[in-house]
Amino acid sequence: MEKIGHLINGELREDCTDTQWVYNPATGEAIRELLLAPDALINEAVEIAKAAFPAWRDQPAIKRARIMFRYKQLLEENKDEICKLIGEEHGKIAHDAMGELQRGIENVEYACSATELLKGEFSKNVGPAIDSWSEHQPLGVVAGITPFNFPAMVPLWMFPMALVCGNCFILKPSEKDPSTSLFIAKLLKEAGLPDGVMQVIQGGKSVVDGLLTNDGIEAVSFVGSTPIAKYIYEKASQNGKRCQALGGAKNHAIVMPDCDLENAANQLVGAAYGSCGERCMALSVAVAVGAETADNLAALLTPKLAKLRVGAFYDNDNDFGPLISREHKQKVEGYISSAENDGATIVVDGRNPFIEGYASGYFVGPTLIDNVLPTMTSYQEEIFGPVLQIVRVDTMQEAMALIDSHIYGNGTCIFTRDGEAARYFSDNIKVGMVGINVPLPVPVAYHSFGGWKQSLFGDLHAYGPDAVKFYTRRKTITQRWPSANVREGAVFSMPTL
Amino acid sequence: MEKIGHLINGELREDCTDTQWVYNPATGEAIRELLLAPDALINEAVEIAKAAFPAWRDQPAIKRARIMFRYKQLLEENKDEICKLIGEEHGKIAHDAMGELQRGIENVEYACSATELLKGEFSKNVGPAIDSWSEHQPLGVVAGITPFNFPAMVPLWMFPMALVCGNCFILKPSEKDPSTSLFIAKLLKEAGLPDGVMQVIQGGKSVVDGLLTNDGIEAVSFVGSTPIAKYIYEKASQNGKRCQALGGAKNHAIVMPDCDLENAANQLVGAAYGSCGERCMALSVAVAVGAETADNLAALLTPKLAKLRVGAFYDNDNDFGPLISREHKQKVEGYISSAENDGATIVVDGRNPFIEGYASGYFVGPTLIDNVLPTMTSYQEEIFGPVLQIVRVDTMQEAMALIDSHIYGNGTCIFTRDGEAARYFSDNIKVGMVGINVPLPVPVAYHSFGGWKQSLFGDLHAYGPDAVKFYTRRKTITQRWPSANVREGAVFSMPTL
Amino acid sequence: MEKIGHLINGELREDCTDTQWVYNPATGEAIRELLLAPDALINEAVEIAKAAFPAWRDQPAIKRARIMFRYKQLLEENKDEICKLIGEEHGKIAHDAMGELQRGIENVEYACSATELLKGEFSKNVGPAIDSWSEHQPLGVVAGITPFNFPAMVPLWMFPMALVCGNCFILKPSEKDPSTSLFIAKLLKEAGLPDGVMQVIQGGKSVVDGLLTNDGIEAVSFVGSTPIAKYIYEKASQNGKRCQALGGAKNHAIVMPDCDLENAANQLVGAAYGSCGERCMALSVAVAVGAETADNLAALLTPKLAKLRVGAFYDNDNDFGPLISREHKQKVEGYISSAENDGATIVVDGRNPFIEGYASGYFVGPTLIDNVLPTMTSYQEEIFGPVLQIVRVDTMQEAMALIDSHIYGNGTCIFTRDGEAARYFSDNIKVGMVGINVPLPVPVAYHSFGGWKQSLFGDLHAYGPDAVKFYTRRKTITQRWPSANVREGAVFSMPTL
Amino acid sequence: MEKIGHLINGELREDCTDTQWVYNPATGEAIRELLLAPDALINEAVEIAKAAFPAWRDQPAIKRARIMFRYKQLLEENKDEICKLIGEEHGKIAHDAMGELQRGIENVEYACSATELLKGEFSKNVGPAIDSWSEHQPLGVVAGITPFNFPAMVPLWMFPMALVCGNCFILKPSEKDPSTSLFIAKLLKEAGLPDGVMQVIQGGKSVVDGLLTNDGIEAVSFVGSTPIAKYIYEKASQNGKRCQALGGAKNHAIVMPDCDLENAANQLVGAAYGSCGERCMALSVAVAVGAETADNLAALLTPKLAKLRVGAFYDNDNDFGPLISREHKQKVEGYISSAENDGATIVVDGRNPFIEGYASGYFVGPTLIDNVLPTMTSYQEEIFGPVLQIVRVDTMQEAMALIDSHIYGNGTCIFTRDGEAARYFSDNIKVGMVGINVPLPVPVAYHSFGGWKQSLFGDLHAYGPDAVKFYTRRKTITQRWPSANVREGAVFSMPTL
Repeated sequence: MEKIGHLINGELREDCTDTQWVYNPATGEAIRELLLAPDALINEAVEIAKAAFPAWRDQPAIKRARIMFRYKQLLEENKDEICKLIGEEHGKIAHDAMGELQRGIENVEYACSATELLKGEFSKNVGPAIDSWSEHQPLGVVAGITPFNFPAMVPLWMFPMALVCGNCFILKPSEKDPSTSLFIAKLLKEAGLPDGVMQVIQGGKSVVDGLLTNDGIEAVSFVGSTPIAKYIYEKASQNGKRCQALGGAKNHAIVMPDCDLENAANQLVGAAYGSCGERCMALSVAVAVGAETADNLAALLTPKLAKLRVGAFYDNDNDFGPLISREHKQKVEGYISSAENDGATIVVDGRNPFIEGYASGYFVGPTLIDNVLPTMTSYQEEIFGPVLQIVRVDTMQEAMALIDSHIYGNGTCIFTRDGEAARYFSDNIKVGMVGINVPLPVPVAYHSFGGWKQSLFGDLHAYGPDAVKFYTRRKTITQRWPSANVREGAVFSMPTL
Repeated sequence: MEKIGHLINGELREDCTDTQWVYNPATGEAIRELLLAPDALINEAVEIAKAAFPAWRDQPAIKRARIMFRYKQLLEENKDEICKLIGEEHGKIAHDAMGELQRGIENVEYACSATELLKGEFSKNVGPAIDSWSEHQPLGVVAGITPFNFPAMVPLWMFPMALVCGNCFILKPSEKDPSTSLFIAKLLKEAGLPDGVMQVIQGGKSVVDGLLTNDGIEAVSFVGSTPIAKYIYEKASQNGKRCQALGGAKNHAIVMPDCDLENAANQLVGAAYGSCGERCMALSVAVAVGAETADNLAALLTPKLAKLRVGAFYDNDNDFGPLISREHKQKVEGYISSAENDGATIVVDGRNPFIEGYASGYFVGPTLIDNVLPTMTSYQEEIFGPVLQIVRVDTMQEAMALIDSHIYGNGTCIFTRDGEAARYFSDNIKVGMVGINVPLPVPVAYHSFGGWKQSLFGDLHAYGPDAVKFYTRRKTITQRWPSANVREGAVFSMPTL
Repeated sequence: MEKIGHLINGELREDCTDTQWVYNPATGEAIRELLLAPDALINEAVEIAKAAFPAWRDQPAIKRARIMFRYKQLLEENKDEICKLIGEEHGKIAHDAMGELQRGIENVEYACSATELLKGEFSKNVGPAIDSWSEHQPLGVVAGITPFNFPAMVPLWMFPMALVCGNCFILKPSEKDPSTSLFIAKLLKEAGLPDGVMQVIQGGKSVVDGLLTNDGIEAVSFVGSTPIAKYIYEKASQNGKRCQALGGAKNHAIVMPDCDLENAANQLVGAAYGSCGERCMALSVAVAVGAETADNLAALLTPKLAKLRVGAFYDNDNDFGPLISREHKQKVEGYISSAENDGATIVVDGRNPFIEGYASGYFVGPTLIDNVLPTMTSYQEEIFGPVLQIVRVDTMQEAMALIDSHIYGNGTCIFTRDGEAARYFSDNIKVGMVGINVPLPVPVAYHSFGGWKQSLFGDLHAYGPDAVKFYTRRKTITQRWPSANVREGAVFSMPTL
Repeated sequence: MEKIGHLINGELREDCTDTQWVYNPATGEAIRELLLAPDALINEAVEIAKAAFPAWRDQPAIKRARIMFRYKQLLEENKDEICKLIGEEHGKIAHDAMGELQRGIENVEYACSATELLKGEFSKNVGPAIDSWSEHQPLGVVAGITPFNFPAMVPLWMFPMALVCGNCFILKPSEKDPSTSLFIAKLLKEAGLPDGVMQVIQGGKSVVDGLLTNDGIEAVSFVGSTPIAKYIYEKASQNGKRCQALGGAKNHAIVMPDCDLENAANQLVGAAYGSCGERCMALSVAVAVGAETADNLAALLTPKLAKLRVGAFYDNDNDFGPLISREHKQKVEGYISSAENDGATIVVDGRNPFIEGYASGYFVGPTLIDNVLPTMTSYQEEIFGPVLQIVRVDTMQEAMALIDSHIYGNGTCIFTRDGEAARYFSDNIKVGMVGINVPLPVPVAYHSFGGWKQSLFGDLHAYGPDAVKFYTRRKTITQRWPSANVREGAVFSMPTL
């Protein structure tokens, strides 16, 4: 069986302490074997990166950017292979994998703006004949720890910006679908990246801890669940590293009575069920304002769900695929059952769907639950599956209070035609990414991604302008030259230097 | 004896669990009594601040800025009183206190630029008819914990920017010289700040811990020694707060053979002995390149030190005053003795100086130590006293290696006339604030202050542009409006929405 | 009678070739005598300014900004005197004069941000060991030519930014109400501005031409009517000066059927009749979408107009005052009559109003004209008086086509509740300043003011960020240092420089 | 013979009123025939561009940027063909043509940053619940008129930025070497640019005038000689277009006695003779400070010039090629003769060189003239040929006064090791582009290019950040929504709007 190894100093390596299966979630079959890195490999990688750093940071930014220009091309040329790898290990349908990759490529495009982004601020005459300016210098060796749900996109949120700022990067991908991340990392060499500047280490918690405690690593970016994000943020902070750790979410859409409800329903279907709901920006709660709105919304959604096609990634006519693992399928179905037990209405039930030819796959069908209450477990926790819950409220204020009370504050959305409602909502809601009639308000690559509350630990958001700050250290120079020397005539008579 | 209390909701309060003397360091006399806050007062202050927050954050930025415009005037009008308070409790000579205050006022001036600084980024058409923009929203209630050595300036690094960004602020000043901070905080009310937006709580470690564990506080700014900075950063991080914690320093100046040595010597005297060396940017190590340079430097410095006047703050002809406490005087003199014991040359010895009329003051005279080696304790640790040490090296590379090996990376400087040497130094040295012929390269208020390595924990520097990022949270809005409704003619005849 | 002279090199001067009366427009009486400058005075002023320039441009920006901090205070302290001068010569009611002054002061506040605004861009390593940065250097001597309708505000749009960027400024105020401009210019000396940096020259077209042809003047800012703006732009361009020339306007508000009509009507009254309509941002055309909207709007407006109080500036209960001159009153009334003759409906007629005690004042009462057609002269030209015209259209597209067809493109507004309509309008309308439910969309001081089409000649708008570009010249420095010299050990043995 | 036509609406067109030969300057042979456009073709192109504009401006900026990403690839893939065309018609040696192209491509790279560059400024709460933001909207149809000396680079300074900002572009290349510009314009279609967005019109002055007077054109960018730049700036301004017109130069290098003279001499050779001196940034005057410096400089230069190889573009070992035309050769040689007649010393004489096999080519060899005086014609005018003149002065102040007195202020440079001299020079010299030990201080593509004095007409520089301002118009939106409507609970029951 194919082994998935590490990328160290430009070479594939098969060092391991142990191995772990990687499954095709549509079939439940183990398809590859992941090699788990020994501690020594982390140290080796860090030393290699530290050695590669000085030459890399001294490159003009435009030269680093040009590697990203070529890298963009290579990602586009290899898109089918990348999407196939995503599909095989994650289960995402090809069109969705392509969407993920495209979002990732947009971060490479933004990294191509490095010369603009790395400009410092120059102040003439901060005092008499004294000038001062700032430089954004790279940190050194930085690490990324990425989740299973976006094996291409989330790494691409991190390393293109980290690299183009002049850092060396070590990526630890998810153990569940590591091949994509390894594949796209390997392409960087072809794009012209020097060996050792980008490396990949496979593994689980021990590799995470190895990275967090290694003194050679200056910063860690993480995307995953909130408990792990919190663990990583604290441990990285204790070890003197800067850290940004993105966690879980529970994204609500407020559906206002004045909105274009047909449009809202269509948007919700994509945002709730796309990628089988395994997105940190998945819209999992619709807060309907007014009973009539709720009734109409449920009525509009039901037939739409009936038309959704669930299946394996091979068939591009499918709308979404399986969940990532058997354990996760059980967990998601458990949430549906708990809602049912708590008295919610299961309008559309996706538990144990029949998928022709994929009896052992980890599938859950589209599920719609109405009359969900804030006290229910299915409301309070992140489900991360194809489940949309409707909560009914009487007023917009009540809807907003609900959102603000939740521990997560990643994304949210309002459906309305009314300028005032939209402005009031976006101004006051305690959530980091806000959509107005946009159900998945993932910021474009030239803005930054980040939730509030328990959805993000750290002060700087992911990618976009904040990434430049995260991956660089400010240095401020203040300069005065001693009074005229060479400039004065007297000196010219004896220019002995 | 005058009691020093708390500023809560616009009123002075005398709640306390215990009290502590505040001394005049020039005389060694207790002059005021500090009231140490009970835990309940912290909670009360936080609740008041939380209540004041919504109205304050909704103020247009220009209205918040106008309070800063008035505050600048008030600080200038009250400068003599402020400098007197600094002198009485810290011992700083009036001209130096005025310098401190002026640096603080510059941060108020920068806060007056709030409308410019708070601009978000607007992107038209991030997709078809979809717009996206960022807002920098205030965090809520934030806290500052400040050191004794700049009782006016360091608080002014923090709260003007925090307030103008729309936050409420709770300040815990140093227990050693709390009156100045309280005084300048009180002036804000006169400037028009609503009650509860700025509060002051007096106390020691228990107040620090109370702030760090209070869920209502979103962020903490700290300036002090490295062990405490590290403690605060970790504890704040564990408690879900953003934090920037500035610690200790050991600032080196490289003295190059080509420099204007007379000028360098003059600059060094001010930078090493100003404020009795109790500055985190004090220049405490001169690294002379070449024996001749070192000999000449020591020869130039010695007579200059003889002319320095040490004494109480009342006399503006004095150059610097006492250290902050008896314990600190013993510690500083201990470092001098340890250098002596380790084999360094005590060129000028400031131990136990005779200061007419101030026999009980905590004075140490200007001290110059030559032939200091990197292995000596006096080199490795921060002395924070009027002690300049000369280290001799053969090359600039050796000098830079020395600086880069030190655990601190706050400020550094090079004296040279040579453009190439200056550029190489500022590019490569692993220190956050770099001077070219500027011995105290404290960035101006419109740049940001921050060291590297163990001198700063956190990713954003203090004051300046970074402070806007630190005291705000990014919110990104993505907006699309549903297809034409009101805009279409047909609708006008029957506007039934 | 009081004479109004020039401010030259910090002194009042009474040089003149001729004189001209300045009238109180409420009474029609001549109240002061304006001294018209001879050509020689222009040359003298320019030479003085050129001499003052080097020292002024070398001041650290923060020092220039501090003069603006003090200037803001002085303007606020002298606000009653300034508003009285505005009232006496322009006729504006005190509350309106105060509004004008406040808008002007906001530009002074923005100028206080100079240190932030003047930052250049620094790029490290544009090539190997090559750095490059930009500086925004002042131009030298620049001039401003300002209109009668905002004798305080428009000069304050210009000179605070010009000065704080390091330029010297020569102001030629309107001949009709020159005292205000002279008064506020004089205050700068008290604020600490060096003599010669700000000067005022009184006069008419010959002074304008003198400024436009003087080689010592680098740039000209103008606000006035379009024909003169065009003349000035061309002449300045021919003479090698940079120029921004703001001209006339015809600002339309689209009133949509879904809007809050009562609110819209209230807004329109203020925007149309404030300052007697003598504002380049006055809202002079309401484009009602749908006959019902038009009928309702006219019905709502009529009683509101009846309540408006017209009179002299002395009485703060008045809503607006007289027009600026007898000739202008005749011109405005002529437009009303022409509309009447062209078939429009004079709903409220303000011609020849009776103002108790001010029979000789240049008053026109609030006038509302309905059924105005785009072919009418009163529609095509700028009236600059208290006249609001209603144009009736069937669709929003028709309304927008009307606005886009007009030769002016200064400001415009839409009244609607609908997000989509607002976004479509603001995106597509060919006008520089757009309001959504904001009838006078004058940008705040930290944005920039400028119309499109015939309303502005030049590429940079007035005040705000564009003013920094207009009043500075970009200089780009590219720097490389020759290979190591002082830095190399060998050199240290013979540091003879 | 091959005809060179126009690119109209994506198609090659051969409309013409007349034709003109295009020569190979190395051989003096006519090699192609240029078709001069009739007036009607200008109108046609403008109408096509106006029609293409709305859809193009509505494209998301990232989509426009992606065309530039592809365009960069295409330029790189076609580099040999492009350099051959440059060589054939301009005479530039292949390595130099490649350098030109590379500089051009850097502007395409910068245009790829469009999403970042087009961000507007968003201000929340400029008043109570009022927001304001700026947008940088494209102008419409804009034109570029470009010189013979950089047939690839100068067009690439203009149209990539103009296009990516959302404009349609019409290029009129030089009549002397039009094929390169046409070729690179054609590649845009392959990159995905819609037809009509980029067009090329061939011709001379009548086409220039046709563009300048066409009402459909909003802006004109020009690079060429000063008299024509001035003509174009005035005519464009009169016709209501924004314009930036770059003219001639006389770039001085100050050679200081402390500099690395061998390095300076090497740099000067490249900067003076590269591209046969036909660069607006060519370094044509060396101002030597001190007689010894001058003597040494001349002595170092002389043998270096002897080694320079002059010849046709086919041979990449050549250093530079012919001048552009017979007339220009005569003019350049005339300047050399005039210097000789005026008493200067012709150290190396390049008049009428013998170039084996190219007897009819327009060659002038490298020429060095010493003892040039500021009063000589050869000093006062731009030669635009392979001629370096040495002026001798006693002090740096004298050198700077000389530079500041010249009518041009494009580029300048100082050779020194001294930080103070460099800073004083760059601060005070009245020249737009300044090099410190960089003889050709052409700003990189992410800064902006522009001279001062008679070297540039207009307020915004070419390419870089200024190009975004030049090719867009600021629109400022101020938005307030009427008080709660949909948001209020009561409304939900009866949303009758």
